Amino acid sequence: MNSAASEPALIGIDWGTSSLRAFLIGAQGEVLDKVSSAEGIMHVKDGDFEAVFRKLIAVWGANAKVPVLASGMITSRNGWVETPYAQVPLGAGDLARALVPHPTSCGMDLRFITGVTTDHAAGPDVMRGEETQIIGAQALGMSDGTFVMPGTHSKWIRVADDRIEDYATYMTGEIFAALKGHTILGTLIEDGPYDAEGFSRGVAAGLDKGSSLLHDLFHVRTLPLMGRMESRSVADFLSGLLIGAEVKAAQDRGDATAAVTIIGRSDLADRYETALTAAGLHSTRAPDDIVASGHFLIAQAAGLIS
Amino acid sequence: MNSAASEPALIGIDWGTSSLRAFLIGAQGEVLDKVSSAEGIMHVKDGDFEAVFRKLIAVWGANAKVPVLASGMITSRNGWVETPYAQVPLGAGDLARALVPHPTSCGMDLRFITGVTTDHAAGPDVMRGEETQIIGAQALGMSDGTFVMPGTHSKWIRVADDRIEDYATYMTGEIFAALKGHTILGTLIEDGPYDAEGFSRGVAAGLDKGSSLLHDLFHVRTLPLMGRMESRSVADFLSGLLIGAEVKAAQDRGDATAAVTIIGRSDLADRYETALTAAGLHSTRAPDDIVASGHFLIAQAAGLIS
Repeated sequence: MNSAASEPALIGIDWGTSSLRAFLIGAQGEVLDKVSSAEGIMHVKDGDFEAVFRKLIAVWGANAKVPVLASGMITSRNGWVETPYAQVPLGAGDLARALVPHPTSCGMDLRFITGVTTDHAAGPDVMRGEETQIIGAQALGMSDGTFVMPGTHSKWIRVADDRIEDYATYMTGEIFAALKGHTILGTLIEDGPYDAEGFSRGVAAGLDKGSSLLHDLFHVRTLPLMGRMESRSVADFLSGLLIGAEVKAAQDRGDATAAVTIIGRSDLADRYETALTAAGLHSTRAPDDIVASGHFLIAQAAGLIS
Repeated sequence: MNSAASEPALIGIDWGTSSLRAFLIGAQGEVLDKVSSAEGIMHVKDGDFEAVFRKLIAVWGANAKVPVLASGMITSRNGWVETPYAQVPLGAGDLARALVPHPTSCGMDLRFITGVTTDHAAGPDVMRGEETQIIGAQALGMSDGTFVMPGTHSKWIRVADDRIEDYATYMTGEIFAALKGHTILGTLIEDGPYDAEGFSRGVAAGLDKGSSLLHDLFHVRTLPLMGRMESRSVADFLSGLLIGAEVKAAQDRGDATAAVTIIGRSDLADRYETALTAAGLHSTRAPDDIVASGHFLIAQAAGLIS
């Protein structure tokens, strides 16, 4: 635990599917301490979320007598409490008004930050947790532009004047895994270190204006089959093809504008930076613990911090 | 066995991955008899293709003393003999010149029809067997237009003046299976009878000009999650979304022109007909035993039939 100059004012929890992170936050929004755990909602025994919660904050002892905000998949159907989605456009004030208080037997002041949805005719998008990270980016002075959150289901989130205007989800990461693990494309893949050339070749194919994924994916098989690609390049070619197609789709949707900020795991974020550069877009990076700033700004908007 | 008015002149074998079909063909190209078997190349024990071959033609006894042409995956790396690909554009004469004779211990005159490739910069396409079906379509008077062959890897084949000009493969069928079986999209699917409304809704989404598959696929989850689609519609919505995206890609590629002929299994062919109609395209259907006509026309071009 760090030594803390400031008094604790808030605990923020980012509670996802496979892991969670908790932050002890000071009155100026500074992170005084943090803990993480593998007890994401899919790993919580017998649905006893409160036991995990108590154990988690117990490390902070008397300091834990502050309000607690929790965001993420913890508010989904398989979480602690299922909360309704709030709808875009929205900012910290809207999320503060939509907070869902939840009684705990230990008497803590726990409130859930709800997930966020869109309502396009083609179909809604849903997210739980990412909205809090994006609100947190305001603390870095990023209140306009597009944020990219790479992952299993990557998100492109458009922000203007500190509000989330719109966003779209791309199933890129999960589709990569399904194609590699469960189609004929996996059979010619030789696992090995990252192959930058294969990745860039894939990105170029995915970005190509005349390309279509259902057709281009077949080249992941035919190029090595016909001796036009080394086996060691195939996995990263597939990765590049999918990420390139995602960037092209985001450009077509009008999301890939001047300022693009990438948030997320660093190896995957590196790939997105490469793909954005190939598409002629300038990108910057944000650390992924901006979620604590999101908890702080929402708590402030809710009047939980004086 | 049918009673045959004409003398046998040729045996044609369409030998695929999971099954095979053999045709006893008369001097005018008429099918005198046919047999089928589950002994596709993946089911042939110890690679003893000749044993399967001998058993297959033995049913025709003395009539089997005619030339034999075999097409399909039998000429692939895991088949009887791996033959090189011939390249588009090509017609029956080119395939006749590229025939690969193969000695058999039983003394039969067996020749393999090679597969066909394209050589686009983005990546080659490959097929083994479909080219013979397409050549066979000439016997139906179809010597111009686009042929669609639905399947695990569907093919769009452009024909002009009795020659295969170009073609493209779409991994639609295999990707459907991988997404349904191995991603989160499968979890909200309730299996049941064909749901025409769900399929048409998917086709419309896939055909939409502003759509992108990586994003739209997420709606296969969110629409039922948010109560905007019944579980029983989800599988066919996914099917329609993918087939619609395939038709749109073929249109963008310039392949979906005036005359589109659908070849293949009838339930899947029905889906393609629905999708083509939704895209404003007129389609006709061809029976899939046109492959025997392909064997006949190639044998004729090779001078094997007087």
